[in-house]
Amino acid sequence: MTKDAKSNPMWGGRFGGAPDKVMEAINASISFDKHLWRQDIRASKAHVAMLGQTGIIDADAAAKIAEGLDAIAAEYEAGGLVENPALEDIHMHVESRLKQLIGEDAGRLHTARSRNDQVATDFKLFVREACEEAEALLKALQAALIDRAEEHAETVMPGFTHLQSGQPVTLGHHLMAYVEMAARDRSRFVDAAKRMNLCPLGTAALAGTPYPVDREATAKALGFDGPTRNSLDSSSDRDFALDYVMAATSTALHLSRLAEEIVIWASQPFGFVKLPDAWSTGSSIMPQKRNPDAAELVRGHAGRVLGALVSLATMLKGLPLAYAKDLQDDKPPVLEVRELITLSLEAMRGMIAELTFVPEKMRAAAASGHATATDLADWLVREKGVPFRDAHHISGSAVAKAEEKGVNLDALTLDDLKAIDNRLDETALEVLTLDASVASRTSFGGTAPERVRKAIAEARKTL
Amino acid sequence: MTKDAKSNPMWGGRFGGAPDKVMEAINASISFDKHLWRQDIRASKAHVAMLGQTGIIDADAAAKIAEGLDAIAAEYEAGGLVENPALEDIHMHVESRLKQLIGEDAGRLHTARSRNDQVATDFKLFVREACEEAEALLKALQAALIDRAEEHAETVMPGFTHLQSGQPVTLGHHLMAYVEMAARDRSRFVDAAKRMNLCPLGTAALAGTPYPVDREATAKALGFDGPTRNSLDSSSDRDFALDYVMAATSTALHLSRLAEEIVIWASQPFGFVKLPDAWSTGSSIMPQKRNPDAAELVRGHAGRVLGALVSLATMLKGLPLAYAKDLQDDKPPVLEVRELITLSLEAMRGMIAELTFVPEKMRAAAASGHATATDLADWLVREKGVPFRDAHHISGSAVAKAEEKGVNLDALTLDDLKAIDNRLDETALEVLTLDASVASRTSFGGTAPERVRKAIAEARKTL
Amino acid sequence: MTKDAKSNPMWGGRFGGAPDKVMEAINASISFDKHLWRQDIRASKAHVAMLGQTGIIDADAAAKIAEGLDAIAAEYEAGGLVENPALEDIHMHVESRLKQLIGEDAGRLHTARSRNDQVATDFKLFVREACEEAEALLKALQAALIDRAEEHAETVMPGFTHLQSGQPVTLGHHLMAYVEMAARDRSRFVDAAKRMNLCPLGTAALAGTPYPVDREATAKALGFDGPTRNSLDSSSDRDFALDYVMAATSTALHLSRLAEEIVIWASQPFGFVKLPDAWSTGSSIMPQKRNPDAAELVRGHAGRVLGALVSLATMLKGLPLAYAKDLQDDKPPVLEVRELITLSLEAMRGMIAELTFVPEKMRAAAASGHATATDLADWLVREKGVPFRDAHHISGSAVAKAEEKGVNLDALTLDDLKAIDNRLDETALEVLTLDASVASRTSFGGTAPERVRKAIAEARKTL
Amino acid sequence: MTKDAKSNPMWGGRFGGAPDKVMEAINASISFDKHLWRQDIRASKAHVAMLGQTGIIDADAAAKIAEGLDAIAAEYEAGGLVENPALEDIHMHVESRLKQLIGEDAGRLHTARSRNDQVATDFKLFVREACEEAEALLKALQAALIDRAEEHAETVMPGFTHLQSGQPVTLGHHLMAYVEMAARDRSRFVDAAKRMNLCPLGTAALAGTPYPVDREATAKALGFDGPTRNSLDSSSDRDFALDYVMAATSTALHLSRLAEEIVIWASQPFGFVKLPDAWSTGSSIMPQKRNPDAAELVRGHAGRVLGALVSLATMLKGLPLAYAKDLQDDKPPVLEVRELITLSLEAMRGMIAELTFVPEKMRAAAASGHATATDLADWLVREKGVPFRDAHHISGSAVAKAEEKGVNLDALTLDDLKAIDNRLDETALEVLTLDASVASRTSFGGTAPERVRKAIAEARKTL
Repeated sequence: MTKDAKSNPMWGGRFGGAPDKVMEAINASISFDKHLWRQDIRASKAHVAMLGQTGIIDADAAAKIAEGLDAIAAEYEAGGLVENPALEDIHMHVESRLKQLIGEDAGRLHTARSRNDQVATDFKLFVREACEEAEALLKALQAALIDRAEEHAETVMPGFTHLQSGQPVTLGHHLMAYVEMAARDRSRFVDAAKRMNLCPLGTAALAGTPYPVDREATAKALGFDGPTRNSLDSSSDRDFALDYVMAATSTALHLSRLAEEIVIWASQPFGFVKLPDAWSTGSSIMPQKRNPDAAELVRGHAGRVLGALVSLATMLKGLPLAYAKDLQDDKPPVLEVRELITLSLEAMRGMIAELTFVPEKMRAAAASGHATATDLADWLVREKGVPFRDAHHISGSAVAKAEEKGVNLDALTLDDLKAIDNRLDETALEVLTLDASVASRTSFGGTAPERVRKAIAEARKTL
Repeated sequence: MTKDAKSNPMWGGRFGGAPDKVMEAINASISFDKHLWRQDIRASKAHVAMLGQTGIIDADAAAKIAEGLDAIAAEYEAGGLVENPALEDIHMHVESRLKQLIGEDAGRLHTARSRNDQVATDFKLFVREACEEAEALLKALQAALIDRAEEHAETVMPGFTHLQSGQPVTLGHHLMAYVEMAARDRSRFVDAAKRMNLCPLGTAALAGTPYPVDREATAKALGFDGPTRNSLDSSSDRDFALDYVMAATSTALHLSRLAEEIVIWASQPFGFVKLPDAWSTGSSIMPQKRNPDAAELVRGHAGRVLGALVSLATMLKGLPLAYAKDLQDDKPPVLEVRELITLSLEAMRGMIAELTFVPEKMRAAAASGHATATDLADWLVREKGVPFRDAHHISGSAVAKAEEKGVNLDALTLDDLKAIDNRLDETALEVLTLDASVASRTSFGGTAPERVRKAIAEARKTL
Repeated sequence: MTKDAKSNPMWGGRFGGAPDKVMEAINASISFDKHLWRQDIRASKAHVAMLGQTGIIDADAAAKIAEGLDAIAAEYEAGGLVENPALEDIHMHVESRLKQLIGEDAGRLHTARSRNDQVATDFKLFVREACEEAEALLKALQAALIDRAEEHAETVMPGFTHLQSGQPVTLGHHLMAYVEMAARDRSRFVDAAKRMNLCPLGTAALAGTPYPVDREATAKALGFDGPTRNSLDSSSDRDFALDYVMAATSTALHLSRLAEEIVIWASQPFGFVKLPDAWSTGSSIMPQKRNPDAAELVRGHAGRVLGALVSLATMLKGLPLAYAKDLQDDKPPVLEVRELITLSLEAMRGMIAELTFVPEKMRAAAASGHATATDLADWLVREKGVPFRDAHHISGSAVAKAEEKGVNLDALTLDDLKAIDNRLDETALEVLTLDASVASRTSFGGTAPERVRKAIAEARKTL
Repeated sequence: MTKDAKSNPMWGGRFGGAPDKVMEAINASISFDKHLWRQDIRASKAHVAMLGQTGIIDADAAAKIAEGLDAIAAEYEAGGLVENPALEDIHMHVESRLKQLIGEDAGRLHTARSRNDQVATDFKLFVREACEEAEALLKALQAALIDRAEEHAETVMPGFTHLQSGQPVTLGHHLMAYVEMAARDRSRFVDAAKRMNLCPLGTAALAGTPYPVDREATAKALGFDGPTRNSLDSSSDRDFALDYVMAATSTALHLSRLAEEIVIWASQPFGFVKLPDAWSTGSSIMPQKRNPDAAELVRGHAGRVLGALVSLATMLKGLPLAYAKDLQDDKPPVLEVRELITLSLEAMRGMIAELTFVPEKMRAAAASGHATATDLADWLVREKGVPFRDAHHISGSAVAKAEEKGVNLDALTLDDLKAIDNRLDETALEVLTLDASVASRTSFGGTAPERVRKAIAEARKTL
């Protein structure tokens, strides 16, 4: 391993030698924290404005630094950031460029702060935006789901438990289940954003600072509810990243369930949905294929989001206060999650909006599997006062009879039913139809179309 | 594999044979869901009261069932529940016993509900209690931390970053960092409890029910904010368990950090704390040992709590709606987490309350490692207008000089300092003391004792 | 917290007080390490035999201790072990009982060993057995799969990719894929058992021992390949537990894939399999249900096995040498995994052996979805020298034509084909049948029945 | 979302429209599978050679394709690969470029294969190399550890359990513990590489192929032990990636333990090691800092490696056969792990080789904490025939006495000892020295310097 002749400019006067090349490689974070350049410059501008206002540095220097930072932002916006591994991280890239642009006064920017509070602030700004973005994408997904639910408020499909036909439901009702999940996920991102919304800037390395900083001012300038309350905590806290990734994990799991359903529904034996060309892929070898790749990738991404959560949590386990370099491993998982969850939500919204549902296949499937057996049991309870357990037993015998005859339950004759229990009469036959079954479930939260329409109307209000 | 002659009494009239013994073993949940018996009886009582009030079953039957449930509760309270693996789960144990006690009317209890909504309700009640318990234990831990912080608001110790001496801080300030973490954790449990607080009871298997159930009434009776809004979601949702375990994971990670510190502080080279006998263990072979087992177990438990989170999340991944039996694997992780997090919080509270801190070892450690080098740099900025970057460089040279001389930074002479930079004068020497350093960090969130006392006073208000 | 008056008998003369009740609760491992009593007694017997043979203790005392251990084993076998939380762990339970039975000589058993090497030895013995058990259960599963594969070597079903009909395959071929996975899993358990097979007994607490122990002898007596080579490593190593859980994770993932297929195949729209009553469950509300609970539980258990892996791995992260009490958290995950993986393998074997396959539903599904489109492309390559890419394009056009006509690909007429590409002739039509397609895939590892039968014959040899 | 006018060239003649932009973004893998270009070209060359040799395509076309592939490899080697998101993956990039270079014959390359077997082959080649690389790096780390162990075979340090001083050991012995861990890790990578070493190429999409492929030939050409045995398994198997990441997880956990020790040892209170400038970093604010960042990053990386394992495992859970697009999420975790584990192993080797150990600090620490109390107990057993349990108790009383006097155990007088138990005499005092203690532990695997030197000699043989 050869060594660089020059030491790191930010570590100052005490280091004799330069880092080993492997050390430089493992230590550098610029390859990923460059994604935080906007936040870094924004936070530096808030900091330097405060330094100027409080007189910690003089107003001219503050103004010069602010201009320099604007110039750097313009450069990055226009031409991107050029990575220099020797300049370790985004903070040093910016400060080093600032020195080139404005000279020695650049050295005043780092007064009353440390990279520890700086990176915590930058990253919080980034994660807060990620929360807001996810919340907005969930809302857009809800809108797509509600639109399709309204369209299919009366479309009958099998309601599954254990992927076995259980009771008929409507597709609208089924889609609205995901609206509920998305509502909870939105609240998770909102809670996370709220909980993290205190500003670490000005807590410096770990102990606070002797300068008369105005932390309220920087917090306000950066949209925080106020400053953090303990400097050691501020320097070592990554709860905000964990909260974001936890909310994203919950979201990814919900999406994986919907994705699994799309994959199953698109299979030939189900045929409940057709994927438009825009959301399918083909095969390099099988010319007939139309694959639900986007749904599968959304499902697979749930694994990676959970993996990112484990990465973060394991990294945090057992770290003594305050800052430790392990914390640098907070960013790759969060950056990955943001990309995955954004793509997943956009893809799911697109698929839901553009899927072709095939109601006739759904109805045909609902008509098999004796899905109205519960209705028969409920009829016995309601009309004949039979205890439910007995009614369940009688209905079970009717199913056994239908299986024996090789027909669906609703094809049993009155004689068949009478032979099982003579309290059964012709009105019992009426409850065995899919539409009667669905229409009967009018309890709050139930699948009756009238009930689903009310749920849709309520859900629209929350958008 | 031999087969039982008799089929499961709850599945009714359609099954010909009995389950394989392995099937019975893998399927039975009574070994763990017995822990939910209080919740199961409570929810059944709310359900039957509603069935009676709405006239879905007659009032006499409802009263008889309610009495029977009370009798079962009394039995379990007195003598425990006797597990019968053939009776699969807690619901069947209760219903089966009810039938023995009150006869056929027991069969009316299961009207207008399913085990799907029943178990979701029971489990939500359990998890909600677990949230409340954790929140209360966190509060108790905060109280212990605050008491010790007040006692040590002025005790100087090294403030570490990278476990290297960084700047002196006070022990009170350090302990208050954990009060902040606990505050966030409390808010997580509160958020989780709030988000889950809708009642699934009455959504039945998956589709709602045709009975005129009053879901508002049962929700209210069980302390929920209202009924859940979608029956498919109600039957398949385990977000509440995930939210609880996520909050517990965050808590366990924070505890693991404090535990790590106790382990390190208790080591001979640090010697910052002494563990009382009540919180130490010995060795079967090494007679002198006094081991911080409780701290290590708290640290280790963080792994198991995270493991439980992965268990739950992976189980949920890709499950189609509505209920699937995989969901039965929700309970073992949650039960384990509740036990681990309760023990961890109680043990940590106990240790914090009873630890002996050794201020002289802390101060001696703070006095080594040139921990006031930042103060020297800050002095140059403040008193001589040197840009921070340059000041940092000068101070770094002073450290190099001290290392060369084999002394700590505060033992440099004025001549030493002058030789490095002649702007340094005798007042610079004053900032190099530990007490001056700590006292100077008066910024909001900083470690100055006066600031720490204010933070303690504020924190007491939130208890 | 009240305190016990008496200190732990194993920690000896230095402790003044007794543990706090919470300390005792968090510290005790007897509730789970009682499952290691056989291993503990076996290892103690090997140890004491060696102590006697080497003269470290006298032969009479050794004989007395060995008899006492046998007596304890007989007691536990007959009546179970009575847990006493004050006696912390299985080692102390055994030693304490030994003292009751044989008096002071019991105190000689712990010569030249520590609980650290003792528990590592006990647990390795347990884990090695668990590896052997899993390997045997995998072999039994392979046998069941091979039997059913042979029965269905010619049963045509759709071969899916993306759960879309891709190319026809045989059910026998499909089942044999799992035989391959199980073969790899067997090799993982074999590798794990081999890698762990060095004996830690006699390395004592962490540093070795001054007694002239014969570690080769104890290693041999306990079936190890030899003694471990470093005492610090021996005391802190839990690789063997991790290796076991990793192999179990791979196994559980494979089982989860097969379980998912059973769930999908059992759904009404697929109908590829029927579950016998012995492997189905019913519903408390829906009388017609026959649910694949065992398959779902096997699928769900994969989450818990992975969770156990994360528990173990996170616990191990960052632990300094040698023994730390965190390591006590190694046992609950391993015990859980052993139970889950045993049940999962037994249940899967049972289901595979007893499932009813429905070949006519499989064939019907294979006949839809244009599954022989690749065969048409291959025909063009083979018979007409068309580059595969062009052939794929032509075949794709034929699929488009079939979809336009609303028929399956094999229902296209010669005119249809000619209109697409006039190199297509009547012999091309022949390759479009399911049986021709399957029979043609004779390449090594392919689905042609003759090839599958050869694979079955080979696989039988490995059982 | 706008749509591209043109469909994907590889999916052929059936698609009407182009993918949605989000679909294209979520679907494209070129951003990461470009790292497989060498493997892709290598596998294609083996495939086309076989196609030519078997006459599946004519020899001229085969030669032309091979030359084209060489030309592409040269281009990529020289100028890198230019990503085109519309060309989805590395396979299409290569094939598309091939067509530009050699025209229509490029279309013959994809005969008798699919992207499913192609990517499985490419990725296996990549993972096999990663296994070999990790194994070599572990060997290099062992070499560095052994060198330092030899240098410090007699350097006394405290042997810790629970991070409490337990018994004195030598630094050489401590370092050799990691040589053992690395040996097991090497065997894991070797096992993994061996288990994966069957070639999927030629199993095509999922069912095998009707072409007379010679799979033995391609397997041999690519360094495999033979072809895989089941085409469905070949297309859906990612065990090899899991095996690699599991071995890497075990390695990362071991490294995290050593990293934790370096961090603790480098702290001021310990001071057991000094980090050279080449392996330290400074602070942007604290001029005196010399931080063990590389050790902390190695420790943090263990979290990310475990996260990658969870990503992979969760992605695989519950996937039906054969290929599913979820499997595309296999590459990012593996690529990340390879980078992390390579850097971690290189950094650890560098640190171990260049760390400055501080034997006087180690010895001083070993001399405190009554670390020879076990020796006193062992003396009583050996010299006076006291049962170990009683001896442990007597020695514990001696420790209590030393604590009472405020001295270390070896400073007790003979009178002190006699007062505790009059069997103690002056020879007992001799066993209380550090060197005597260490020298006495001559049992196999023990810390006596002579024993450590033998272990070093044995370990050198395995390099």
